[in-house]
This record gives sequence, structure tokens and C-alpha cells, in this order.
Amino acid sequence: MSEYFTTVERWGVQEIRVEGPKDGNPFTEQWIQGTFQGTQESVSVDGFYDGDGIYIVRFMPSFEGSYRFELAASFELSKEDRKGVFEVTKASEGNHGPVRVERTFHFAYEDGTRYFSIGTTCYVWALQSDELIRETLETLRQTAFNKIRFCILPKHYDFNLREPRSYPFEGTPIDSSVLTRENFKEYDELSEGNHWDFTRFNPEHFRHLERCILKLEELGIEADLIVMHPYDRWGFSNMSKEQDTLYWSYVIARFAAYRNVWWSLANEYDLMKHKTIEDWESYAALLCKKDPYRHLRSIHNCKNRYDYSRPWVTHCSVQRTEVYKTAELVDYLREAYGKPVVMDEMSYEGDFPYDWGNITAEEMVRRFWETVCRGGYPGHGETYFHSDLIVWWSHGGRLYGESWKRFQFLLDIMKETPDCGLKFLEQARGEVRAVSEERTIGRPGPRDYYLMYYSFMRPAFKDYYFDDTTEYRVKVIDTWEMTVTDLGVQKGKIHIELPAKQYMAVQFKKV
Amino acid sequence: MSEYFTTVERWGVQEIRVEGPKDGNPFTEQWIQGTFQGTQESVSVDGFYDGDGIYIVRFMPSFEGSYRFELAASFELSKEDRKGVFEVTKASEGNHGPVRVERTFHFAYEDGTRYFSIGTTCYVWALQSDELIRETLETLRQTAFNKIRFCILPKHYDFNLREPRSYPFEGTPIDSSVLTRENFKEYDELSEGNHWDFTRFNPEHFRHLERCILKLEELGIEADLIVMHPYDRWGFSNMSKEQDTLYWSYVIARFAAYRNVWWSLANEYDLMKHKTIEDWESYAALLCKKDPYRHLRSIHNCKNRYDYSRPWVTHCSVQRTEVYKTAELVDYLREAYGKPVVMDEMSYEGDFPYDWGNITAEEMVRRFWETVCRGGYPGHGETYFHSDLIVWWSHGGRLYGESWKRFQFLLDIMKETPDCGLKFLEQARGEVRAVSEERTIGRPGPRDYYLMYYSFMRPAFKDYYFDDTTEYRVKVIDTWEMTVTDLGVQKGKIHIELPAKQYMAVQFKKV
Repeated sequence: MSEYFTTVERWGVQEIRVEGPKDGNPFTEQWIQGTFQGTQESVSVDGFYDGDGIYIVRFMPSFEGSYRFELAASFELSKEDRKGVFEVTKASEGNHGPVRVERTFHFAYEDGTRYFSIGTTCYVWALQSDELIRETLETLRQTAFNKIRFCILPKHYDFNLREPRSYPFEGTPIDSSVLTRENFKEYDELSEGNHWDFTRFNPEHFRHLERCILKLEELGIEADLIVMHPYDRWGFSNMSKEQDTLYWSYVIARFAAYRNVWWSLANEYDLMKHKTIEDWESYAALLCKKDPYRHLRSIHNCKNRYDYSRPWVTHCSVQRTEVYKTAELVDYLREAYGKPVVMDEMSYEGDFPYDWGNITAEEMVRRFWETVCRGGYPGHGETYFHSDLIVWWSHGGRLYGESWKRFQFLLDIMKETPDCGLKFLEQARGEVRAVSEERTIGRPGPRDYYLMYYSFMRPAFKDYYFDDTTEYRVKVIDTWEMTVTDLGVQKGKIHIELPAKQYMAVQFKKV
Repeated sequence: MSEYFTTVERWGVQEIRVEGPKDGNPFTEQWIQGTFQGTQESVSVDGFYDGDGIYIVRFMPSFEGSYRFELAASFELSKEDRKGVFEVTKASEGNHGPVRVERTFHFAYEDGTRYFSIGTTCYVWALQSDELIRETLETLRQTAFNKIRFCILPKHYDFNLREPRSYPFEGTPIDSSVLTRENFKEYDELSEGNHWDFTRFNPEHFRHLERCILKLEELGIEADLIVMHPYDRWGFSNMSKEQDTLYWSYVIARFAAYRNVWWSLANEYDLMKHKTIEDWESYAALLCKKDPYRHLRSIHNCKNRYDYSRPWVTHCSVQRTEVYKTAELVDYLREAYGKPVVMDEMSYEGDFPYDWGNITAEEMVRRFWETVCRGGYPGHGETYFHSDLIVWWSHGGRLYGESWKRFQFLLDIMKETPDCGLKFLEQARGEVRAVSEERTIGRPGPRDYYLMYYSFMRPAFKDYYFDDTTEYRVKVIDTWEMTVTDLGVQKGKIHIELPAKQYMAVQFKKV
């Protein structure tokens, strides 16, 4: 019976390390598994080879109390290694467990705490230098972001042609010194010139990502892990089915025990020309089988939305599919798929030459509010061109924009919603009318909570009427200037003067 | 043979006035017709009763040279009245004839001069006081507008509840002193309290409109006449089929000879609940039969676009049917209907409480450019709330906004287009790419003219490539600031630095 693990907190990571064979290829020739048993759960998980003869099995307990475990492996385990007990203590402050879907369209942590997702995207922030990673984390600490999308694999794309800090496999990459903005596309998905052993992982690449996931956890940020993507010059997007399965299994075994992990099967899956829908479905099946914690699962599109009605999809992770309507489709998507709608990509604030990366801060903030008032959850990105080619959207670093400064204000307003979140009620006369989710089901008449959003429209006044008797506290919200004007308690015919500016909202809270 | 008409210019109005019976109801009991014969045309038209025993027949000659005419009537005509001759001289400067459809999607005056439509809407400007009408005309004189939409019938609508200067029929209207912003909808289409004789027109109402049409003609502005509309408290939208036919016949007989007239069968036809599609088709048939000059004909929608593929429809007169996509649908509508697309209503610059009347000047100008670059023609309106309730959109008067100041600049750029107009080529990477209409048919390779529009996007630079050899003069256009920066003649791979601002365009003219 092993002694070197004693206690772990609920939704923490219990990690069991044993020594085993180094010879041959331990990644493919050996296996290790663990079964963890508490009074309320029994969980079996795959472990993984971490290099240097070390094998690791990780487990995230979902309950407090005494647990025991038993390991099994393809190699001989000592008696001390094979079994053990440990105690799961209560979750520490700020640890609310993994995020789950709440009442069809929303999210909450497993302990019931509401989670209003405010995301950002920094595709390969974790594969930059230590210094840049530190800067990214410091920036994140100052923002309202509570979810970040990023890749496990390195990225080859315009404005992102440098070498990553490490590679996931043993081997050597194609020479990148010949790459330019003009010719980089010719290297797309090219594997010639690369020399990889896809059966041997580089454990340090993954260990580093785990440290990044933990840093995010400390900041209260969900790690929306993009497992595959098409921006590739190394052949990682063009591995065989067997190689993919090995990669997926390794990824799940390493990362699943971290409570803040979300799975994004791919970014722009539909640009990955070597993969079929059957491939995605098989990775999803593997994920459902091998992740016992049921972390949130989705897949992100480019031109064609995935069929989010597939049962393994927990929420829609949407990229806008047209230039002029983005956040405005959230209520449609809710109805179409009956799942939470996360608008992960609605164009980014910036000045890139591409339409997906050059909207104004005002428009980014407008799309955030439009998303929220339609009952969805918004995602940010920033793409300001700098000569050093450090861009938040890809590398992290610092933020130069104006939109991110308005998200804490939005989040604070979101938290004023009764129940689990907002629901789009209707759009009429230039007003996006949101109400609180739960209380609207089959309930006619005035609601307890209304949030009217005016988007780019500029009414000089508005007239409201709910009924003659219900009293509301009325507040005028300037979503851009971040001011709230309390107009007191009103009822009946309510006439509100507005400043004839864009980006205004009016909130009605039943007293 | 009459002597008192001698010459008229081509596309001018030849008016023949005769005396006839006053007794009974001359509007229904009498008729008069004229046949006009030149060497190149023979045209028969209905005349009309103008009150006080005067009957008028109007004719617009389409050719120069000698004409003779012959009248026929339900009453005895003297020999002098019955026949006559006159000479049609060449059109005076600025008189280009009526506007016609040119090469499927565009417009030109009958003399071949290109006409790039830049419209505005002032529904009942012509039914205001003399002073306000003078102010409207003075305002129009300072703008780039070359088309204005307005109503023949008075309008009952929010912000427009006062009495018009006159009514089209003999009788007395319902008392309007009881109307308020709150109760006005109860009076919609109400005919109770009105006392009209729908068989007796008020000629002065129509004479006044004719003077307004002529004033517009002097300013080079097309009069897009809205013959019917739903904003009514007098019962004018709820007349019988027979009454409607009489009204339509009178309207055509009076107005058709003015070269700057366009026919808009209705504004928001789909809100006229007493009319059916069969009704509209029958009015259209009457118009086709009775207007020998084939003035442009369309009908304007609210929620449901009319079937613009109907053969009598010469062009689409579109109101946006959704809040977030307006001008962006122009290329779709061109393809759907194969006719010119006039975006007459894309929301108005202003601060009204309704979404159709509270966009920014920037967004109005953006929609104008977006319309133009997609090969359509834009329309403006202004709805700033003022305590005097004089609003351009309804009453005319003065303009308070910022968008109208940018339309002459746009018009000047439109006039730089080779051939008859622009055509949407494609949208890629945040660029709306327009080319000259004619030269693109079945012609691969680089064009003679490109206009790239960046809308609300803000590229810091763009890279272009057409071919290695074609030389273009390149100009960067700030559509809001109205500046043009000439970047000289370039070819091959063309890299353009842009100011990372919204509303930019880049023009390429083959040298």
C-alpha cells in the first residue's frame, strides 16, 4: 500500500506515479490503468507513459471521503504501487468543480455555482516563450475572461510561422526559415521534410500544457482545449487513423483529470480535408468512452456548422458563417439544437486584412451583448497587426483593444439575472428583449426580469407597458460607457427618455 | 384648328384645355381623349376634368418634329378645339427624358444619359404649407438626391397626425383634434366621421401636386409617386374597387405626361388589409394600359416583398425585411429578380423609437456604399425627433443629419464607373468587390475597373493581384471623410497600406 499520496481536494487531481519499463516503445507496448473507488463512485481510467520509465495515472474525485484505488498494467507492479487509499477533502475556495450544462441552454459548475461564460481565443499562447506566457497570464488576470480556447498542437498560419516552443512527438520539423507571408500556404499540411515518430510522444510538450492548464485553473479560467486543427506544416493534421487514436488516447489520459478542461474536437474541422464526419464521430466516441468526468464537448466550424444535435455534443461552439449576421443567430441556434450556444468566434477586434479579424471594439462589444440577450455566451479575440507579430488571437501577450475592458461590466450585469441565465423573448421595434430563463416557461404575463437591448439603434425614447400593477426597478445601461442610471420604481405605462446613442440597454427588475 | 399651342420641347408637357359641361358629375359622366400623331409615334391618352368646366388632355412627345392631334369627348367639341398641330423642339438643357431601365440592372434617361439613382423619402412633403414646401425644395437643391418618394394621398401615422393642406376628394374629414400618439392607431383606416364623395375629385389637390412635380423636375429630381398607402384615417385605403379604378384613372390622366414621374403602386402594400394581390395586379394592368410613356413601375413592401418577377414591375423598390441585413441582400435580389434593385428603405438616419428610424449617419452611408457596390441603388430617409414634429421622412423641411452630406461624393464616384453601372463580383476576405457591369459578361481575367469596399471592416493593409501586366491607377477612398488618395499607377502584386478605419474603399482603374 503506497503512502506518498495522502489527501486531495474534491475535483482536484490525484496523481499516481509508478516506475516501469523504458525499453522498446513504452507508448505503444505498455499500458496502465487505475480504478478509483469511493462510497459514491467507482471510476476506471487509463494512465500514460511520461518518459524516463515513469507511468502516471490521474484521477479527479467527484466526492469527498475515503477512496481506494487499484492499478493494473502490462508490466509487473510492486505491491506498494498496486493499491492505495487516500482521503478526498472538501473543495478549496474558488474550486466549484467542472462546468456542466444547466437547464438546457446555460452552464453551472458542478457545485451549483452559476457560470456565465465570457471567452477569448489565443490559439497557441501556451506554445510561446516563458516570458510571453507569463505576460498572457498576467493579462488574463486583469480581464473578465473565464474561458480560453487554445491548441494542443502547434499552429502554422499567416502571422504565425515561427517554431513552437516544443513539438508533441519525437522527431525533427521541416525547416521553417524559408517561410514567408506569400508562400506559407504552399506548406499547408505538408509532411515532407518532417521526420516524426508518431508513436513516441514528447512528454515535456504535454507536461508544459498541464502547467498552463493549472495556471488557468488558478485564475478561474476554463481551458477549452482544441485537440486538432488544420493549420499545419508538420503533418499532424494528416496522421493515420491509428496514429490519431494513439494521440487522442494520450491526450485524454493526460488532461481529463483537470477540472477546468473542455474538449474542442477541432478548430475549423471542415478545413481538415483528410478527416471525415465518421472520423470526428469516432474521436467523439473515444472521448465519451475514455473521459469518465464527462467534460464539455464540442467542435468548432469554419464554413459549415457541425451537426450539434449529435448526442455527444454538449454545447454549440460556433464560428459565424456569414459576415453580417453573427450574434443575431443565437436564438435560432438555441432553437435548432436545444443546447447552450457559445459564439466562440464572431470576428475579432482588430485591423487584420481578413474580415474575421478587423471589426471595431464597439462592434465586438455589441456582438457580446447581442449574444447574451439572445440567451447565448460570447467569445472574444483580438487581431491588431504589430510589426513584432505578437497577436493576442494567436500568441497571447497583451491586449491593445478596447472591447475587453467592457466585459467585466457585462458579466456583472449577467450576474444580476435571476436563475441560471437569460433567454431571448422577442425582437420588436428595434429592441432585443431578453428575460430570465426559468421563469418564462409556460408563464404568460409580465416577467420578473427584462433586459432590453438596443444594439446599434438609437431611440431618443421608448414606451413600455407590461401591466398596470407590477412594479419594476428601471435602470438605463450604457453598455459602452459602462454607466447605470437608476430611474427608480415604476409601473403601468412607462416612458423612458434615452440619450439617442448606440449600445444602450434598459433593465427592469420586479421589486 | 387651335392656335394657342405652338411649340413644346421633347419630353415636355403639351396640354390641351377645352371647355365643357359643368352640370351633373363631370368626373364620372364625361370623358375626353386625345390622339397625338408625330412621324415616329401615335399616342392616345385619356384627359380629365379639372373643375370649373375645364377639361384637359396632356401629352408628352417622345420625338422632335411636327405633331397633330385630335380630341374626342362625351360632349360636343368645337371645331377649333377638336384638332390642332404643334411642333416639338429639341429638349432643353438638363432635359434628358424619362428614366428607363438600362442593361437589366441599371437606369438611364431616354436620351442615353446615365442615371445613378440616389433617393430620399419625404412621404407628404407636398401636402405641407407653402413655406415648408419652399424649405424642402431649397434643401433638396443642396443635396445629391435625384429621386424622391412621396404620396398623393395624405398620411395618418405616428408623428404625422395633423391635417394635410388639402384632400383629394370633395367632402369633409374626420375631426383630428382628438388624436394623440397613444390613440392614433385606433383611427387606422377608419372612415366613420368622414364625409367624402369619392366620385368628385378636388382638382386643386392634384394641381398642387403637379406644381410640386414640376419643381422637382427643375431640380433634376425624379418624382417617385406613391399612389396608395395604408396610413389612413379617412377611408382612402378602403375604397371600393370602382372608386379605386376612378382614382387610378384620374391619377394617370393627370400625372403621366410629366417626364420625371415614377409609379409606386403602394407603400407597404402588404399592410393594406383591404387589398389583395389581385387588386394590385389589376391596378398595374390599368397603369400599363393607360400610361403610354411606360414610366417606371414598382411597389414597396413592409414585411413581405412583392413578387418583383411580375412582368409589369420594372425595378425592385425594396424595404429591408430584416434588421441586420439590408443592403447586403442587393446582389441576391438582382439575381432573384433580374431587375434593377432600388433599396428605397434600409432604415433611416435618426433617433426614433422604432428600429426603422434610428440608425447612425455612418451606418446609413455604409448601407449606401454597400448597395452601390452590390450593383443596386440606395435610398435615404431622416427621422430625428424634434418637438415641432417636422421630420424629413414625412414632412420634408431641413436635414439635421450627417449622412446626406456624403452622397454627392458617392455619386461622383459612381459616375467614374465605366459603362452603365457597377456589378457585384464577389465578397472575399471582408471585401465587397464591384466591377463595371458591361465588361464582365463572360470575360475572364482582370477587369477594367474595380471598386473594393470594406464596409465596417478595418484592414490595416490589403494585398491585391490581378495579373502581371495590367496597369491600374489606384486610389484609396475614405467614404466617410470624403477623401481620395491617389497611389499612382501599379501592377502585379499590389500592397496597399490602409488606415485601419471603417468605411474605406479602394478603386482600380485600368490605364
